[in-house]
Amino acid sequence: MGRGDLDPDQILRLEADAVVMLDQRRLPDEEVELRCESAAEVAEAIRTLAVRGAPAIGIAAAYGYVLAAERGEDLEDAYEVLAASRPTAVNLVWALEQLLGDPSPERARALHEEEVDRCRRMAAHAAALFAAGTRALTHCNAGGLATGGYGSALGALRTAWEEGLLAHVWVGETRPLLQGARLTAWELEAVGIPHAVIADAAAAHLMSRGEVDCVVTGADRIAANGDTANKIGTYALAVAAAHHGIPLYVVAPTSTLDPDTETGAHIPLEERAGSELTRRFEAHNPAFDVTPAALIAAIVTEEGVHRAPVAESLRRTVRAG
Amino acid sequence: MGRGDLDPDQILRLEADAVVMLDQRRLPDEEVELRCESAAEVAEAIRTLAVRGAPAIGIAAAYGYVLAAERGEDLEDAYEVLAASRPTAVNLVWALEQLLGDPSPERARALHEEEVDRCRRMAAHAAALFAAGTRALTHCNAGGLATGGYGSALGALRTAWEEGLLAHVWVGETRPLLQGARLTAWELEAVGIPHAVIADAAAAHLMSRGEVDCVVTGADRIAANGDTANKIGTYALAVAAAHHGIPLYVVAPTSTLDPDTETGAHIPLEERAGSELTRRFEAHNPAFDVTPAALIAAIVTEEGVHRAPVAESLRRTVRAG
Repeated sequence: MGRGDLDPDQILRLEADAVVMLDQRRLPDEEVELRCESAAEVAEAIRTLAVRGAPAIGIAAAYGYVLAAERGEDLEDAYEVLAASRPTAVNLVWALEQLLGDPSPERARALHEEEVDRCRRMAAHAAALFAAGTRALTHCNAGGLATGGYGSALGALRTAWEEGLLAHVWVGETRPLLQGARLTAWELEAVGIPHAVIADAAAAHLMSRGEVDCVVTGADRIAANGDTANKIGTYALAVAAAHHGIPLYVVAPTSTLDPDTETGAHIPLEERAGSELTRRFEAHNPAFDVTPAALIAAIVTEEGVHRAPVAESLRRTVRAG
Repeated sequence: MGRGDLDPDQILRLEADAVVMLDQRRLPDEEVELRCESAAEVAEAIRTLAVRGAPAIGIAAAYGYVLAAERGEDLEDAYEVLAASRPTAVNLVWALEQLLGDPSPERARALHEEEVDRCRRMAAHAAALFAAGTRALTHCNAGGLATGGYGSALGALRTAWEEGLLAHVWVGETRPLLQGARLTAWELEAVGIPHAVIADAAAAHLMSRGEVDCVVTGADRIAANGDTANKIGTYALAVAAAHHGIPLYVVAPTSTLDPDTETGAHIPLEERAGSELTRRFEAHNPAFDVTPAALIAAIVTEEGVHRAPVAESLRRTVRAG
């Protein structure tokens, strides 16, 4: 077995004079904390990926906003700089909105706890989709590091593992920044789940050999019709999975749903520096792509499972909500 | 414009007491030659990818075999060690077979010249498939480095560029060993063709945005029915291209055709060390995959274009040959 679980406080916490986070850029080689002493420093930590993952950057932004309030910073400026730190995940603005009326440490910590609680609930819903002996493939990191604790897609895999349903996890390394090879493998090792890292481009080959039963990912933003923005490469997996009749499950908290964005075409997709990919040659480095709702077998939130066609199911939820 | 073309002799040559090659492991940072002074050293260079690419390793093996003959080595041993250096490309055994009756420097050099000549001929056939303004996507390196000069897929792109048909090349970086980012980008830069490196997993996203007009790759072995083994990730591109109605062109010399292997299921696919991908975690590192003939729009050899359904067209050629 592995070294055990990460405590939510180890991933991300608010102290009296700082937001403190495990610096995800330096994992798995070094476990180092980063202290951010202003909203601007938190925004910089988000921009440079010291903390990443849609729910986790929402929590970090909330903590940063509270820190600004405690320090007497201009709160409009703090909101601006935090909201603009990355464009694709809707959780950033969502979390800040939760704090507007009450930018207190208690409210921000409650929001963090709520996100981890959502993970456990969605994991239970998602694990129910797994058959015994499942070999799942995941991409990027949708683990505790990405959500402030437990994980969305990885939470689903953890619950499935505890229930004896999961046989193996294929981990796409996730170029260029290797969140799969660095972070997801590290988290799976910690909790003792059998896994192997693969080149992203090897996933379709494994599917063709019958070695993948389902694809499970998180999400950065889910449009009203179910189109889902996630780490670049998710769309390639979705196309390959559809070609092989393999279901793609998106596991994400309701804080990632964006009913105000009609379809994936309206989601802003971050472009990052080409130098993340190669310093020597011209490069193009889109950080996210959009998977059309039609390629998604189910979107799982803490409220339950939206099965395909997911657009209709999401519409009913929003109407009910 | 770039620094110009590589001479076939710079890539690979036979000297009186050695096979000398540009060490492709050290490109693009350093342009260093590697001297191999026995068949075993040539086999080691092939195994460790100092020289790679199906036609180029065939030429290297041929030179290694002649070197063994010149040095009075046991030729059966030399054949064995060279033929076994890598499993997937059929060119290795094909080239050795060409030398069996006449292991002379002249014959080996003629074989090298013939391979480069095949490249120019197949490039002309392939370029005729391109419309003006084509934005092509390629994977791995099927350039002069891979063929001993000019290139197969990259030769096609070069000819299309000279004919004013090519607008841009997307270069899949090709994890884990980055043959696209290291070698293909270096070759395209040398001849001044506009290009950008992308993460392999970004290709499907670019297709969905209408930014890719065709996919062009080389091949390591083409079975009798047209199923094609090539660098891991080619199959993922083929599936994504088919999903978007984008043609996949395989450009390869007849030395890569293997009429004795019925289908892709019978092609041995090399597995390389997981440490090429990540040293820290468990990894699985298949080096090749198979693209079914049904996903290939055309296979182009020096003899002409086999259009889909390629199986029938290949069958006619073999019968005629």
